[in-house]
Amino acid sequence: MKTRLLDTWAAGRAAVNGWLAVPSPVTAELTARADLDSVTVDLQHGLIDYQCALTMLQAMSASGVTPLARAPWLDPGLIMKLLDAGALGIVCPMINTPEDAENLVRYTRYAPRGVRSFGPTRAAFAYGAQYWTRANESVVTLAMIETAEALENLDAIVSTPDLSGVYIGPSDLSLSMGRTPKLDHDDPTVLAAIERIRDSAHRAGIRAGIHCLSPSYAKSMIDAGFDLVTVGSDLRIYVAALDEAIAAARG
Amino acid sequence: MKTRLLDTWAAGRAAVNGWLAVPSPVTAELTARADLDSVTVDLQHGLIDYQCALTMLQAMSASGVTPLARAPWLDPGLIMKLLDAGALGIVCPMINTPEDAENLVRYTRYAPRGVRSFGPTRAAFAYGAQYWTRANESVVTLAMIETAEALENLDAIVSTPDLSGVYIGPSDLSLSMGRTPKLDHDDPTVLAAIERIRDSAHRAGIRAGIHCLSPSYAKSMIDAGFDLVTVGSDLRIYVAALDEAIAAARG
Amino acid sequence: MKTRLLDTWAAGRAAVNGWLAVPSPVTAELTARADLDSVTVDLQHGLIDYQCALTMLQAMSASGVTPLARAPWLDPGLIMKLLDAGALGIVCPMINTPEDAENLVRYTRYAPRGVRSFGPTRAAFAYGAQYWTRANESVVTLAMIETAEALENLDAIVSTPDLSGVYIGPSDLSLSMGRTPKLDHDDPTVLAAIERIRDSAHRAGIRAGIHCLSPSYAKSMIDAGFDLVTVGSDLRIYVAALDEAIAAARG
Amino acid sequence: MKTRLLDTWAAGRAAVNGWLAVPSPVTAELTARADLDSVTVDLQHGLIDYQCALTMLQAMSASGVTPLARAPWLDPGLIMKLLDAGALGIVCPMINTPEDAENLVRYTRYAPRGVRSFGPTRAAFAYGAQYWTRANESVVTLAMIETAEALENLDAIVSTPDLSGVYIGPSDLSLSMGRTPKLDHDDPTVLAAIERIRDSAHRAGIRAGIHCLSPSYAKSMIDAGFDLVTVGSDLRIYVAALDEAIAAARG
Amino acid sequence: MKTRLLDTWAAGRAAVNGWLAVPSPVTAELTARADLDSVTVDLQHGLIDYQCALTMLQAMSASGVTPLARAPWLDPGLIMKLLDAGALGIVCPMINTPEDAENLVRYTRYAPRGVRSFGPTRAAFAYGAQYWTRANESVVTLAMIETAEALENLDAIVSTPDLSGVYIGPSDLSLSMGRTPKLDHDDPTVLAAIERIRDSAHRAGIRAGIHCLSPSYAKSMIDAGFDLVTVGSDLRIYVAALDEAIAAARG
Amino acid sequence: MKTRLLDTWAAGRAAVNGWLAVPSPVTAELTARADLDSVTVDLQHGLIDYQCALTMLQAMSASGVTPLARAPWLDPGLIMKLLDAGALGIVCPMINTPEDAENLVRYTRYAPRGVRSFGPTRAAFAYGAQYWTRANESVVTLAMIETAEALENLDAIVSTPDLSGVYIGPSDLSLSMGRTPKLDHDDPTVLAAIERIRDSAHRAGIRAGIHCLSPSYAKSMIDAGFDLVTVGSDLRIYVAALDEAIAAARG
Repeated sequence: MKTRLLDTWAAGRAAVNGWLAVPSPVTAELTARADLDSVTVDLQHGLIDYQCALTMLQAMSASGVTPLARAPWLDPGLIMKLLDAGALGIVCPMINTPEDAENLVRYTRYAPRGVRSFGPTRAAFAYGAQYWTRANESVVTLAMIETAEALENLDAIVSTPDLSGVYIGPSDLSLSMGRTPKLDHDDPTVLAAIERIRDSAHRAGIRAGIHCLSPSYAKSMIDAGFDLVTVGSDLRIYVAALDEAIAAARG
Repeated sequence: MKTRLLDTWAAGRAAVNGWLAVPSPVTAELTARADLDSVTVDLQHGLIDYQCALTMLQAMSASGVTPLARAPWLDPGLIMKLLDAGALGIVCPMINTPEDAENLVRYTRYAPRGVRSFGPTRAAFAYGAQYWTRANESVVTLAMIETAEALENLDAIVSTPDLSGVYIGPSDLSLSMGRTPKLDHDDPTVLAAIERIRDSAHRAGIRAGIHCLSPSYAKSMIDAGFDLVTVGSDLRIYVAALDEAIAAARG
Repeated sequence: MKTRLLDTWAAGRAAVNGWLAVPSPVTAELTARADLDSVTVDLQHGLIDYQCALTMLQAMSASGVTPLARAPWLDPGLIMKLLDAGALGIVCPMINTPEDAENLVRYTRYAPRGVRSFGPTRAAFAYGAQYWTRANESVVTLAMIETAEALENLDAIVSTPDLSGVYIGPSDLSLSMGRTPKLDHDDPTVLAAIERIRDSAHRAGIRAGIHCLSPSYAKSMIDAGFDLVTVGSDLRIYVAALDEAIAAARG
Repeated sequence: MKTRLLDTWAAGRAAVNGWLAVPSPVTAELTARADLDSVTVDLQHGLIDYQCALTMLQAMSASGVTPLARAPWLDPGLIMKLLDAGALGIVCPMINTPEDAENLVRYTRYAPRGVRSFGPTRAAFAYGAQYWTRANESVVTLAMIETAEALENLDAIVSTPDLSGVYIGPSDLSLSMGRTPKLDHDDPTVLAAIERIRDSAHRAGIRAGIHCLSPSYAKSMIDAGFDLVTVGSDLRIYVAALDEAIAAARG
Repeated sequence: MKTRLLDTWAAGRAAVNGWLAVPSPVTAELTARADLDSVTVDLQHGLIDYQCALTMLQAMSASGVTPLARAPWLDPGLIMKLLDAGALGIVCPMINTPEDAENLVRYTRYAPRGVRSFGPTRAAFAYGAQYWTRANESVVTLAMIETAEALENLDAIVSTPDLSGVYIGPSDLSLSMGRTPKLDHDDPTVLAAIERIRDSAHRAGIRAGIHCLSPSYAKSMIDAGFDLVTVGSDLRIYVAALDEAIAAARG
Repeated sequence: MKTRLLDTWAAGRAAVNGWLAVPSPVTAELTARADLDSVTVDLQHGLIDYQCALTMLQAMSASGVTPLARAPWLDPGLIMKLLDAGALGIVCPMINTPEDAENLVRYTRYAPRGVRSFGPTRAAFAYGAQYWTRANESVVTLAMIETAEALENLDAIVSTPDLSGVYIGPSDLSLSMGRTPKLDHDDPTVLAAIERIRDSAHRAGIRAGIHCLSPSYAKSMIDAGFDLVTVGSDLRIYVAALDEAIAAARG
C-alpha cells in the first residue's frame, strides 16, 4: 500500500508533518488539505480521545495525506483501535527500553511478527479489503526518545526489528536532562542529544523525526538530515497568528 | 450589567472582535483568552449549531470577553436560545427592511419592549439571578446590512428604536452590488456603500461594525471611525498561518 | 395507543410532569425512572437541541413515562422531527392567536386533519409499525398561554378543534402583564389570569396544565383542578438541593 | 464543477441515490463508498441534525459520490448552512406552490439569481476557492411533490426557472390522496399521480426522482423513465437484512 | 437477576447474539428491538468508545435483550466502567493464559470473589438498588480464545472458576495458526481447533460461543453444539445488503 | 499557583468537595458555581470519559473552584491527559501498595520527581505559561484506601513522599471487609478502619478525605477532623430531591 509518507521517504526527501491537538474534524480536514506529507492526531497532549480521533481520521480521508496518531501511552488496546480506525502509523511516547520498542512493534503488526488483533474495521473500507496483507509493511511506528533512560538504551531501541524510526520530543528530553522544557532548543547539551539520537537511528537504518515549533527551526532540522519534521500544532499556530493579528489591528 | 464591549464603547474606543467558525469549545476558549473585546460564535457561515455553541459559550466564560452570536437567520426560537445560553449580543444576517430590524429588536428584548420569552437558563447562573433586569440594556443587537435592498432601506433600518448598531458583511454586500464577493474590498463603489452605511448609523446614534480579513484593513477601518472590527475567523487565520509555516519549513 | 399520560387523565387524575433542561440522556433516564406520568424535554429554555433530545428520548424509553417535548417556537420542521423521534406530545410556546393554535394542531396531525409529513422513523420502531394509525389521537398538543395577546384570544384558542390543552407559563404571563416574571406566583392579578385560563380550557373540554417550581405549589394547583403540573426542572431541583446540602455540610 | 450526479444525467443515465437516516459519519462513509451516484443526508425524517450532518458530509468526501441533503422544511437558514457544509444539492419537502419552489431556488442560488448568503466555508475548502463561481450551476434543487395541493399546482411548480427537478415522496403523496401511506405503491390512483408528476417534470425539461424501498421497484422506476431513484434508507436496509439473518440463523 | 441470555441457556437453547460496530445509539436501539437474545457493543474492533457505548446501552434498555460489551483489552478500569454502565457481560479479547482468565473474572466480580470496585451507577438505576447482590451471578464473562498460545493453555483457561464461557474469534485464531484471517472458516485445521475449544469448554461445564458472518454458518454452529453464535455485525450486514440492493436496482 | 483547595487547607479549614457523575458540562458549570472548595469529575464510577471531562473542566473554569478528577484506574496515559486538560488534582482508586502510591505520585509530577510527560496543553492556557514551574507543588494527589490489602499497607502508603493525602471510599472498604457496601457507614468495624486511616494520614503529615452521602454525615466527618468531605454526587443529590418533590406534589 503506497502512502505519501513512504513515497516521500522513498524519494529521498524529508516529510513535513502537521499536528492536531484540537478535538475537531474541521481543523483536521483543513490541515489535511494543506501541503503536508503526514498529519498526526495527538491523543497524548492533544485534547483528543478515540471517538473524536475517528471523525478526524474520516475527515482527513479525502486528502492524500498520510494519517498518523500519537498514542497517549504504550497501550495495546488503544493503539490497535487507532490502526483499525485508519491511522497509518503510530507515534508512541516514552519508549525507554528495548522491551518498550519491541512491544510497540508487536502491537502494530499482525501475526506472525506481532500480536495486533485482526479486525481492521474502518481501515478495510477506507484502504480496501486487502489492507491486511499490506498493513505490516505500510504502518509506520515511531518510538519517542525523550528521557535520560531512553538515551542510555538508545542503540538497543533503534535496533528493534521492524521499528520504522524514532521521534524526538525536545520538551521532555530537555526536562529529563535538567533543562527548561521547550521546543526549538538551542542548549548545546540538548542539541548534542538530538544529534546523537538522529545519528543512532540513521546508523540502524531507520528514520529520525523531531517535533518543532517555528518553521525556520523545522527547516534547519531538515537541513540537518532529519527525515520528518513537525511544524507546530494547530493550536499553537492558531494562537500565535491570532495574537499577531490582534496586535496589528490594534496598531 | 457591565460588559467589556459596552465598556470599550463607553470609553470611546473601537472594539476588536474575534470570530469563531470552528465548532469546538477548545478554539473558543483559546480565542476568548486573547486580547479581544468581544468574540462572535458564528452559527450562520460558521460550521456550528446550537448544542456546540452552548459548550463554546461555557468555555469562553472564564475570560472577560463579551460573547456574541451570529444567528443563521432572523429566527426567533434560535435567537432566544442563544441569549438564554449566555450570548450577550446577536449579529443577525440579512436585515433588509425596517420590519426585519424591528423584529430583531423584539426577539432580543423582554416585554414590554419585545417578545423575548422568559427563561434565561444559563444566562441566569452565569450572570446572576438579576440578569433579566438588565438584559434589555446589556444585550447588543447588530443588524447586518449586506444587500441592495438593505441599502435602499438604510435610514429606516438604522432608526429602529433600541437597535445597537449595524454590521457590514462586505462579501454579500459586494455580491449584491454585482461585484466580486470578498472581504477587505477596495472597489470604489463598494467602499462608498460601506462609508454610507457607517455614516447613516452614526447619524442615527448607533454603532457601525465591519467584518474584515487582514489586520491592516481592520486597523484602517478603526481609523475610518468604525466602532467594531472583526479580525478574520479562527478558520481563516489558522489556514493562512499553516500554509505560511509549511512553505517556510519547506524552504 | 395507550400512554401513561392519557391513562392518568382517563382515570380522572392529574398528571405530574418532569422537566428536562440539562442536555444529557443520563439525567433524562434518571428522571424517567421516577414516579412521573410524563416528562418534557425542553428545547426552548432548556439547553437542549434536537440531536441531544433524540438520545434523551431513547434513554427514557425503558420507563413507562410519556415523553413530551417543548419546541423552541412554532416551527413545523422541528416539531415534526421531535414527533418522529418519539415524543408523544408537543408543548408549544407563545400561542397567541387561534391561527397559531390551528397551526400547532396541523403540524402534529397526519392528513386529512393536518399536514404532518409521513416518516415516523424512530416512533415506528419504538411504538410499532401501526404507530401512524393511532398517532393523531395519541399525540398530545399543549398550547402555551403566556402573553396578554393570548389572553385576549383565549376563548378562540381553546376552541381550536383537536387541541389537547393549554399550558401556562407563569413567568412570561406575569412579565407580559407588567409583573415580576416568576413561577409560583401569588400576585392576585396573575392568579386571576391563571384561573381564567384554566376555566376557559375546561369549558372548552380540554386540559389545563401549569409550570410550577415548588412541590407544594404544584400540589395546590392539582387541588385547584389543573390536569397537569410540572415540578421544577432537573436543573432547578438539582441546584436547590446542592446548595442546601453544602450549607448543611458546612454547618 | 463536475459532479457524479450531473455526469450521470449528462450521460443519459438514471442516478441511483443512497439515503442516510442514521446520525453517524460511519454509516455515511460506508454508504458513500458503495456504487451510488448520490447520497442524501436526510434531516427531515432522518434522525439527523446539522452538526451531525456536517461530520457525515466530511466522511463522504473521500468517495466520488455527490452529497445531497434533505432539509426538514423550507428554512433558508438551515438550507444555506447545509450548502456551506458541502451538500451539492437540496431535496426540500412540502413544495406545494410555485412560491415555495421559487423560494427553494432563491435560497440555493447566489445573487443575482437568488439570495443565498455568501460564505461557503467548508464548500470552499472541499471544492476549491472558485466554488462560488460554479455553485449556482452545480447545486441541484429537488422539490418534493407530495400533497394534493402540490398536484394542483404541478405545472406551475415544475416551470420554476432554475429548479433542477422534482422528487416524489410516495408516502405523503398517497396519504394526502386518502390512501395508505407507503413506498413502492401499486394503487392505480397513486401510480397515476406518480406518472403525471414524472411527465410534467419532463415536459418542463427538468428531472424526476422518486423515493423507493425495494431494489426491484427502484429498477422498475428507472425503466419507467425516472432520472433518480432512491434504494431504501440505511435504517430500513439494515433492519430488513438483520431480521432476515436472525431468522435464518434460528433456522 | 434474570436475563434473557441466562434464561435461554437455562432452557437448553443456543443464544443468537447481535454485534454493534457502528458508534450510534440509533443502530443499537434498532438491533436491540430485533429477535436477539443478547447484543454486544464492540469496543475493540468496533468504532466505539466508552461515552458512545453508554448511550448505546441506554438505548437498548427498553428491549428485553441482554446487553454485553467487548472490551478493547484486559483493562480493569474500562471493564468496570462498562459494567457500571449497564453491560451484563464482558467479552474479552486475547485471553491467552489462565492468569488472564482469572483476571477477567476478578475484574468483573465484587469482593470477596474479585476486585470489581463498588459503584454500579447506571446499573443500579437500570436494574434496581439490589443489583449488586446479584451482579456476581448475573454478569457473564466470555474469554476469547484466539491465539496459538491460548490453544496451548486451553484446558487451564476453561477451568478458571466462575468463568462463564469462551468466545472464539476465528479471524485471529486462523491468522495465529498461519491461515487466512477470516470468519466462517472451512479450513480443516482451523475447524479442528474450533471443535477442540468447544469441547474443552463443555467438558469444563462452561459455555462456548463463536463469531460468525453468514446466518447459515451461524446455524451450523448452533447445530454443532455452540451455546452462542453471533450473526455478523451491524456494519457488515448493512454493507452487504446495501451492495446487493444497489446491484439489483441497477439491474 | 494558588488554588482554593490549597488555600482552604492552609487556612486550617476542611474542604467541601462536589462530585460529578453526570457526563455534562452543564451540570459541571452549575456545580462549580456553588459554594464548594473543589469539584471532582469522576471518570471511574461516574458516567464520564475523557472527551466529556474536558468540556466539563472548561465549563468549571469561570468559577474559583479547584477542579479535580478521579481516574478510572492507575493509568498513566489517562491521568496525564486529565492534568493537561486542567485538572488540578487526581483522586486514584485502588491504591493498595506503596508501589501504587509511588506510581501515582510519579505520573503526576514532572521530572526529576516524576515521569509526567511535558505538554500541559489546556493547563498552560488556563493557568498561564508558567504553569509547569508550579505544577508539581500545586497538583494534589489523593490515594484511595478502599481494600483490606490497602489497610495492611496503610502506613507505608501514607509515607510515600509527595503524596498529598488519602481519600476513603467507604463502599469498597466495607465490601472488602465483608460488610454491606454503602456510604455513611455506622458499622463499628468500618468506622474503626476509617478512623485508623485518618489518623495514619495525619501522623504522616498528609490530608485525609472521605466520600459521604448525607450532608449531616459529611459535617460529622469534618468535626471528626477530616480535611476534605464530599457531599453526595450530582446524580444522587438530584434523584433524592426529585423523588421528594414528586412525593410532595402528589401529596
